[in-house]
Amino acid sequence: MPVGTLGAVKGVTPPALEEAGAAILLANLYHLTLRPGIDVIERLGGLQAFTGWGGPMITDSGGFQVWSLGALRSVDTDGVTFRSHLDGSPVRFTPESVVASQERMGVDIAMVLDECPPWPIDPAAAAASWERTLGWARRARQAWRREDATGLFGIVQGSVYRGLRERAAGELAELDFAGYAIGGVSVGEPSPERRTVVEWTAPLLPADRPRYLMGVGYPEDILHAVLQGVDLFDCVLPARNARHGVLFTREGVLKIKNARFRDDPAPLDAECGCPACTRGSRAFLHHLARAGEITAAVLATLHNVRFYLDFMAGLRQSITLGTLSDLAAPRAARSIPYEHRSSTQDPSAGGLT
Amino acid sequence: MPVGTLGAVKGVTPPALEEAGAAILLANLYHLTLRPGIDVIERLGGLQAFTGWGGPMITDSGGFQVWSLGALRSVDTDGVTFRSHLDGSPVRFTPESVVASQERMGVDIAMVLDECPPWPIDPAAAAASWERTLGWARRARQAWRREDATGLFGIVQGSVYRGLRERAAGELAELDFAGYAIGGVSVGEPSPERRTVVEWTAPLLPADRPRYLMGVGYPEDILHAVLQGVDLFDCVLPARNARHGVLFTREGVLKIKNARFRDDPAPLDAECGCPACTRGSRAFLHHLARAGEITAAVLATLHNVRFYLDFMAGLRQSITLGTLSDLAAPRAARSIPYEHRSSTQDPSAGGLT
Repeated sequence: MPVGTLGAVKGVTPPALEEAGAAILLANLYHLTLRPGIDVIERLGGLQAFTGWGGPMITDSGGFQVWSLGALRSVDTDGVTFRSHLDGSPVRFTPESVVASQERMGVDIAMVLDECPPWPIDPAAAAASWERTLGWARRARQAWRREDATGLFGIVQGSVYRGLRERAAGELAELDFAGYAIGGVSVGEPSPERRTVVEWTAPLLPADRPRYLMGVGYPEDILHAVLQGVDLFDCVLPARNARHGVLFTREGVLKIKNARFRDDPAPLDAECGCPACTRGSRAFLHHLARAGEITAAVLATLHNVRFYLDFMAGLRQSITLGTLSDLAAPRAARSIPYEHRSSTQDPSAGGLT
Repeated sequence: MPVGTLGAVKGVTPPALEEAGAAILLANLYHLTLRPGIDVIERLGGLQAFTGWGGPMITDSGGFQVWSLGALRSVDTDGVTFRSHLDGSPVRFTPESVVASQERMGVDIAMVLDECPPWPIDPAAAAASWERTLGWARRARQAWRREDATGLFGIVQGSVYRGLRERAAGELAELDFAGYAIGGVSVGEPSPERRTVVEWTAPLLPADRPRYLMGVGYPEDILHAVLQGVDLFDCVLPARNARHGVLFTREGVLKIKNARFRDDPAPLDAECGCPACTRGSRAFLHHLARAGEITAAVLATLHNVRFYLDFMAGLRQSITLGTLSDLAAPRAARSIPYEHRSSTQDPSAGGLT
């Protein structure tokens, strides 16, 4: 799911996003609450009418963004109060208000309010945070009104502690959400830790509901999670890396500003159908990126987003054909050179995205 | 002709530019010489292969950009030496080198090297500059080799002095160029002065060759020039204004960041077929522009470029139907509220574009 924090992927128009193969768009309740405000979106007919995105939409609850505010927020049992990173004005989120805001925007998938603890965190603090998140999930479930219009997803937390993850999966399953997310990953933990969490948690989530791994990630991590039964992903990596000239291709990563691309007539990726690959060359994107042209960001984003969507389409096809496990080895091996790994939800990079 | 100084309109991919209705793209020899260099473009198969633009291409000679460098350049009879605005390295342009560079890039239309004098300029200085430009035009004509591949346009200079303009038009006509441009306008002179220059010059240019008014401009100025027989225009106004949130519509200008658009569900222009108008609302573009999202620049540019191309298509249709003079009054009247008039070639705004 491409990330359109404020209602659009940075640099990409709705038709261009569809052409890249996107079927669903993720926006962010925290950001939309601050700007333009839920009232505006509701008056304008909901998030789809407002943004012009024709397909389904999902909003993250903003729990991660609120937690990343650090000293600007205070948590209590009932909810969280924080100051806008834009103008310092106070805002209050409760489990109920977060569900209501997403229902008012008419999103197809809403996420419960959760705490996204940092990594590392000691077991006692993790347990306290986990307890609060579970309590909020119960209240969100109670507050959920539009079952026919908006699907509400629960979020499994519990950091790297197996007992917490397993109990959360079980308790949330009993609450009968429309889908289930694994949250609290991609917060700086090493890849093996993240994979272990996925391996513990995913198999315990109800098999008849979608499973969503939040904020992950690199293709090899996505493939690993798909093999554990995860269905949905979101990540700012394709778009953020694109804006920094880091391009994903079937042969590995290209840092397009590197001097070796100055004369390179090849497309970024010979198998890609994006406008950068079908019409331009590595040399042209190198030229535009070096010159700081916004067209470089636009073309690079269209490429990376399409690369990811092609990758996901390939995974779906492999599932249909029953060849997913064959796909594993070569894909993973080829993707070793991927670089620029960072917290995919790092609020310090390019604004609170 | 949309302006893609470095080979692409800022924020617009080649397919999106075609979809907006563009048939020809203008790039700039000065900028391409400095970055990526003519050698690179030639090695990569020419400017069209390099940029992925499928239609015809024209390059401005860079005369204007060189003149805007002020103290960084020195002119002699043979040519001009200047320092790159990027790294200070010295570059030399002569009438012959400028033609050769454009031929090496394989452009469809090349422009001669000219002097673009400032406004105002006293008659003696204007005459001296004019003399040099004419001498350079003769040398460029001599240097032009690829008549079947690249059409070379002469450029009429002469500031606001009728005698100079008329004599230049006559002398250039004798040199038998593929087309003729009116240069040295949009350099700060008032609109009536510019129109007078067009009225003197355009009728004297050969009727069987295209006439090109450089760097103009606002729709009402374009309409005026078309009525004088001008065929081609280029201007950075649509794209530059778009990046500043100034949108052209059939009902006048919208400054999209204005608070009155916060809740406005209407498209920018109900008659426009661009992605911003068919899919989004004024409220959504207001939201993205206020947030400083590059998607705002992308959508706004696609809109303004399409608005101009629709306007030009309307003029062509009126010419075919013989109704051009009927079009004059309402178009001109409606376009009075256009604002943000500035030198369309002002190098201080957004880089040397």
